[in-house]
Amino acid sequence: MHAPATFLTAEQVRRIHEAALEILEQVGLLVRNPKARSRLAAHGCRVDSETLIVKFPRAVVEEYLKVIPPKFKFYARDPQFDRTLPDDGPLVATASSAPNMVDPVTGQERRARSDDIARAAHLVMGLPGIDVFSVSTLADDAPPGQFSLSRFYPALKNCSKPVRTSVINPGEGEQILKLGALIAGSEAAYLERPFITFGHCAIVPPLTMDFDSTEMLMFFAERGLPHYGTVVPNAGLTSPLTLTGTLAQGNAEVLAQSVLTQMSRPGTPMIYLTLPTMGDMRTGAYSPGAIETAMLLIGFAQMARYYNVPCGGYVGLTNSKISDAQAGYEKGMSPAAALMGGLNYFVMGGLMDALMSLDYGQLVIDNEIALMLKRAARGFEFSEQNLALDLIAEAGPGGMFIDKTHTLERMKEAAFLPDIADRDPRAKWEEKGRLTSHDRAMLRVRDILTRDNPAVFSPEVDARVRAEFAGLVAGDSVPPEGWQKVEPARERRRRREGSTS
Amino acid sequence: MHAPATFLTAEQVRRIHEAALEILEQVGLLVRNPKARSRLAAHGCRVDSETLIVKFPRAVVEEYLKVIPPKFKFYARDPQFDRTLPDDGPLVATASSAPNMVDPVTGQERRARSDDIARAAHLVMGLPGIDVFSVSTLADDAPPGQFSLSRFYPALKNCSKPVRTSVINPGEGEQILKLGALIAGSEAAYLERPFITFGHCAIVPPLTMDFDSTEMLMFFAERGLPHYGTVVPNAGLTSPLTLTGTLAQGNAEVLAQSVLTQMSRPGTPMIYLTLPTMGDMRTGAYSPGAIETAMLLIGFAQMARYYNVPCGGYVGLTNSKISDAQAGYEKGMSPAAALMGGLNYFVMGGLMDALMSLDYGQLVIDNEIALMLKRAARGFEFSEQNLALDLIAEAGPGGMFIDKTHTLERMKEAAFLPDIADRDPRAKWEEKGRLTSHDRAMLRVRDILTRDNPAVFSPEVDARVRAEFAGLVAGDSVPPEGWQKVEPARERRRRREGSTS
Repeated sequence: MHAPATFLTAEQVRRIHEAALEILEQVGLLVRNPKARSRLAAHGCRVDSETLIVKFPRAVVEEYLKVIPPKFKFYARDPQFDRTLPDDGPLVATASSAPNMVDPVTGQERRARSDDIARAAHLVMGLPGIDVFSVSTLADDAPPGQFSLSRFYPALKNCSKPVRTSVINPGEGEQILKLGALIAGSEAAYLERPFITFGHCAIVPPLTMDFDSTEMLMFFAERGLPHYGTVVPNAGLTSPLTLTGTLAQGNAEVLAQSVLTQMSRPGTPMIYLTLPTMGDMRTGAYSPGAIETAMLLIGFAQMARYYNVPCGGYVGLTNSKISDAQAGYEKGMSPAAALMGGLNYFVMGGLMDALMSLDYGQLVIDNEIALMLKRAARGFEFSEQNLALDLIAEAGPGGMFIDKTHTLERMKEAAFLPDIADRDPRAKWEEKGRLTSHDRAMLRVRDILTRDNPAVFSPEVDARVRAEFAGLVAGDSVPPEGWQKVEPARERRRRREGSTS
Repeated sequence: MHAPATFLTAEQVRRIHEAALEILEQVGLLVRNPKARSRLAAHGCRVDSETLIVKFPRAVVEEYLKVIPPKFKFYARDPQFDRTLPDDGPLVATASSAPNMVDPVTGQERRARSDDIARAAHLVMGLPGIDVFSVSTLADDAPPGQFSLSRFYPALKNCSKPVRTSVINPGEGEQILKLGALIAGSEAAYLERPFITFGHCAIVPPLTMDFDSTEMLMFFAERGLPHYGTVVPNAGLTSPLTLTGTLAQGNAEVLAQSVLTQMSRPGTPMIYLTLPTMGDMRTGAYSPGAIETAMLLIGFAQMARYYNVPCGGYVGLTNSKISDAQAGYEKGMSPAAALMGGLNYFVMGGLMDALMSLDYGQLVIDNEIALMLKRAARGFEFSEQNLALDLIAEAGPGGMFIDKTHTLERMKEAAFLPDIADRDPRAKWEEKGRLTSHDRAMLRVRDILTRDNPAVFSPEVDARVRAEFAGLVAGDSVPPEGWQKVEPARERRRRREGSTS
């Protein structure tokens, strides 16, 4: 792309920046974590010890904004999957931490478990559009004291792409670092290539930093571990019911978080990452699939460019419970718009029902959406050779292109060639069993999950890990019991007709 | 929006313009219509009377490009629905001329008829996102000699928004003008507010102008009737298999068409309108839902801005046969990207299966996509009041926004509030019968089509029209026979449980 779309003029971008500085200096943030308050005070912020409100002088904010690096690197267990923002962008991650799972056998929603995470990790290895596995669900079967471990272990065991999610307290953070060291072979080896990216939500809009997640922000930053926070304003409920006001407040919140991070360790890489929504004020419904999420992300992307920080967002979300047209357009429109608005990092794969549940079939569909985004980001590849004036003259008025060398040379890579989108003539589509895109996606899920996953840990690594953590979940990607119950329409039809083709 | 996204630099845009001039001057177009060749020759083009190739000197092209006006007005039978490009943009039209219909009762595809058009026209009156009714289907029941009349009559009878489609020859053109005059009361009254917009496909890529449609181009232009052509390059088959080459050739074709139009009547309003595709070279499948269509449209939009002409495109198309996730993301992604790339006019509603069939439910879904696009186009509405710094201070850290006057005043118009997208909690969605977005859309179709349509002609107008054209199709929007067979899940469930709520 030559230039992204903008909603704001350069002057309006500066006004949002100024407004954020005003908010931070005059309104401030409620900071619930005493260590964070001390740190902010020690570096020039004004702390009211009764109200716990911290005010950020303009000069302090500007000082720490200057030290944010312009790049963010995701390390992977397998270095071939390392990715850096913005250079390798757009990058696409799964969306994370749904409590529930759409069971691949029954199609019914239920609580998610650690084996669902193992299969999701396995699936991500088969989906080239997904760069980062942000652990898709919680694990309802987590043993006591292993809440995060029951998510990270199946994820890391089955996925050698970058793995990302949050942990709930420093004790669990230490546990996950131990896991990383056991996988890498040593703590030093792990810290050299820290293949876990951590997340937090230190900011609770409006203008609050919580206790636990802010503790984790400092924990990660102090240790130089790759991490980023997510700021989640919901216009009308936790921010003004205007795009402009939500942008100003959200930007102030991102800056506050950035300042504390840089105070904890100057030069910490960051992603300017948000999940902004505008409430549906008829019911108060949380509506992350609404077009306003894309609009706000484009506004935040303008701010991130102003600060020269990689920008990302939760996008491509839906309120739909099933993989219908609503799921398709909600999951397709916002990322497409946000891509054209310059977003670098898309947290978007697999979740339904406003982040409540993971659907493997939808993850496969979202992978195809991701590949379409990446195709669009490649742009026109303008060159005199691609302009092909000689070819146009050679084919001539009324001529043909399909038989030309220029065409033959480009047949495989000129267009994105989808796996899931059906382009058959209707008769052929009917003959194949009138499958929906979700039916085809579930065939792909079965195909991937019933094959071996070369990314799985060696038995030696696994033995080291299991010896350390007693009672650890199995963490294996095994095809779900009764999988044959989801016999897809194509196979059902084939069997009915006795065909062996 | 402040500025649209661009794929090309300003220099690359000039190079595409130069390339088009080179193509027109050195390769030229095959022009099959002798009247067109004479006209082009009379105004400075070089015609080879053996090959029928016409070459366009640079100075001739540049001269006629200068006289294209920057605006295009769609007149409606009811003036409240008049719309002008680009001022009132983005405008959204139905996509037109599918041969088939997804029967709303059986869900099966069949040939489309004039009564399907009447219902589609009625439906468009109930869909605020649709600005222009480009007649969605052909009419398989057209009496001899009334091919176009059997499409325009049901459309105009039931729709007082702008109506648009093509006619196949000048005789049919005269018939439709007669229809317009009878509706308006007189030929003069019709010509004062020409509420029919005509279409043509004079250009047949590569670099050919056909006989009939080029005749129609001149017919419309000479009479000062609102019309526009569509240029449809298909990369790999009728243009180079590169985005850049297809852009250059397509731009040359648009310019050639523009030159002949302006030679026919200088100052004729135009839309720079294309339906560009990149072939799926695995099978040669026509793939208008591919992301490359959006990319090419964004490139063409850059060219249209260079020439200061409104730009439009066929977009939001799909290869899917049903309203599944593929239909959703293919129909959502391309328009969202193209909107951010500055497209003014979206020809996008209702068609499935690569323009082969109309589905009323999908048209209702596409209306919702259209309203999302219009919401995005409204942008941030940046103002100090919307910035709401006082409100942010008043709510304060950890405070509330939902109870504030600022919020209450904006509850209805801040966000786009969808009719079709489900935002219920899962339990409520299940209780309502686990409807898909298409199920909900079909409920809306029934709701609209079983109500009276105030846009229908007066009996006096209808009597005038029917007296003129013997054997004319009925043209009425009547609910389809057996409509009750599509009893939606919600009603089915309610009936089963004997509830009357």
